[in-house]
Amino acid sequence: MLKSLQNDILHEAESKDLKVIIISAEGPVFSSGHDLRELTEEQGHDHHVEVFRICSEVMMLIRNHPVPIIAMINGLATAAGCQLVASCDIAVASDKSSFATPGVNVGLFCSTPGVALGRAVPRKVALEMLCTGEPISAQQALLHGLLSKVVPEEQLEEETMRIARKIASLSRPVMSLGKAMFYKQLTQDLGTAYHLTSQAMVDNLALGDAQEGIKAFIQKRKPTWTH
Amino acid sequence: MLKSLQNDILHEAESKDLKVIIISAEGPVFSSGHDLRELTEEQGHDHHVEVFRICSEVMMLIRNHPVPIIAMINGLATAAGCQLVASCDIAVASDKSSFATPGVNVGLFCSTPGVALGRAVPRKVALEMLCTGEPISAQQALLHGLLSKVVPEEQLEEETMRIARKIASLSRPVMSLGKAMFYKQLTQDLGTAYHLTSQAMVDNLALGDAQEGIKAFIQKRKPTWTH
Amino acid sequence: MLKSLQNDILHEAESKDLKVIIISAEGPVFSSGHDLRELTEEQGHDHHVEVFRICSEVMMLIRNHPVPIIAMINGLATAAGCQLVASCDIAVASDKSSFATPGVNVGLFCSTPGVALGRAVPRKVALEMLCTGEPISAQQALLHGLLSKVVPEEQLEEETMRIARKIASLSRPVMSLGKAMFYKQLTQDLGTAYHLTSQAMVDNLALGDAQEGIKAFIQKRKPTWTH
Repeated sequence: MLKSLQNDILHEAESKDLKVIIISAEGPVFSSGHDLRELTEEQGHDHHVEVFRICSEVMMLIRNHPVPIIAMINGLATAAGCQLVASCDIAVASDKSSFATPGVNVGLFCSTPGVALGRAVPRKVALEMLCTGEPISAQQALLHGLLSKVVPEEQLEEETMRIARKIASLSRPVMSLGKAMFYKQLTQDLGTAYHLTSQAMVDNLALGDAQEGIKAFIQKRKPTWTH
Repeated sequence: MLKSLQNDILHEAESKDLKVIIISAEGPVFSSGHDLRELTEEQGHDHHVEVFRICSEVMMLIRNHPVPIIAMINGLATAAGCQLVASCDIAVASDKSSFATPGVNVGLFCSTPGVALGRAVPRKVALEMLCTGEPISAQQALLHGLLSKVVPEEQLEEETMRIARKIASLSRPVMSLGKAMFYKQLTQDLGTAYHLTSQAMVDNLALGDAQEGIKAFIQKRKPTWTH
Repeated sequence: MLKSLQNDILHEAESKDLKVIIISAEGPVFSSGHDLRELTEEQGHDHHVEVFRICSEVMMLIRNHPVPIIAMINGLATAAGCQLVASCDIAVASDKSSFATPGVNVGLFCSTPGVALGRAVPRKVALEMLCTGEPISAQQALLHGLLSKVVPEEQLEEETMRIARKIASLSRPVMSLGKAMFYKQLTQDLGTAYHLTSQAMVDNLALGDAQEGIKAFIQKRKPTWTH
């Protein structure tokens, strides 16, 4: 499953025609994370190492991907499934969705999900989820920053597609430059962050699409991106 | 008071029977922090140094303790009392509780409380509290991440005990490994965080309680932890 | 405009009589950021470099200024205008205000605004704003930590002045020491943060205003600051 997800995310990643990716699921569960049958003693130490290596690779691939990746959640997202939501750039959920990191219930603390969760929500919220294994609702997830937006189930696809279409209508190289720089500066001290992003603004202005965008704005017309 | 709290927190910290700690108070004040009589000129520079040394030691002890520590707040928590709430892993409060860092009113900016507060809530919320000294309500504290949960006063003990009992029903070595790793990875860059936690997942799987938990899950029975 | 703002912020910065600064605007727009006419190809690379150099300088000046700086927002704050709000220590807005980083619409990702925004709100909220360019309401901005407070338009000045007057009634050297230390410790590891702030508490106690404040508290009278 992780390898298939990895392949799908990498598919035509460098194509100018790819502008945005949506990760969604069929049925009442968005993702419940790892199959515990893969984590028994019999599977062995090396297999365990491999499972978490590829899982972390997929989560970092989302971060490092040139286009924004949106999670569309309609149901339960637990353990590495909750990690997947927290790892996407944008997350839209139906109000019936819920989120948990229940590994403690089976004696396996959700340490890798905690990486993404702990960077998305306040630490007291993350620790209560991680230490008790109990779920939070979509509204609580929104309140605490795990989601970008919550809508009624019947509007989920419409709202997600609206955001995706908006992103797809914009310049891909501008979006790529911006997404990469956002994550890069976030962990730097303020001076370094402004040094890096000031340079990024100047580089961005040198792109054809920026000059076209500014010209179109001044001329009060729609821009035509060349990507 | 700080030494007594330190001793209580350290009491049987390594015992397999200790699963969770609750810090609570009697009366209408959870804690109002330092006694200002200890901070006068007459007490002298060396005494001031000692007071803040031991205070910081207690706050870091909570962070480094092998079991989750829950603050149960029913009333006012100010200055180092607010710092104590922010330093616990989980915090449950009654809806009549309130929180403040009022040191500026007596000419002593709450700089040490700001360490824990600034890591729990958004910086604009922290700075307004620190610069004006004004209190926030339990609901605002929940909204901004200082608390894990807010309940009516009459349910405070019940809800706190419910969370504590849930944690106490789980495997202690799994919880200890998870809590320590959560804080350790939180300040690392993403690649290092995933490297550390992937290793933690593999180490966790090698514990007897993880294999018992997974077996019990597959066999659809309750696990029996050996801790 | 940036140079004028810089001069105003630096005006009598070292005067004992300056206790707090409020940044506000006239009309329906708080600030819409850079003038795109300054960012065309014709203006040239060196001019672009200079624009973002001075912009970042102003944002860091706010951070490093000895007194708290409050943004009072009544209307739209976009791009570098939204960055200005996020860069202030405290931000109070009317409920009709809104906030956006719409650079992507003109092919110029708001990378420098993302520095301040990404340190004020959860990253999923920041990324949705940055990647779609769509606005959030004052209530959403409050919920996510971009604002300290939201009030009806007719109470905006009153509430902002109330906070400003409270800060102005306190000791300036205590406030300066506290503000500087808050930002300094925030990016350190916990041990370093407590080491720095414990020293700051001891230094703060050595100030005349701290001893006056503590004496006044014990004697149940109002303190008289000498700053």
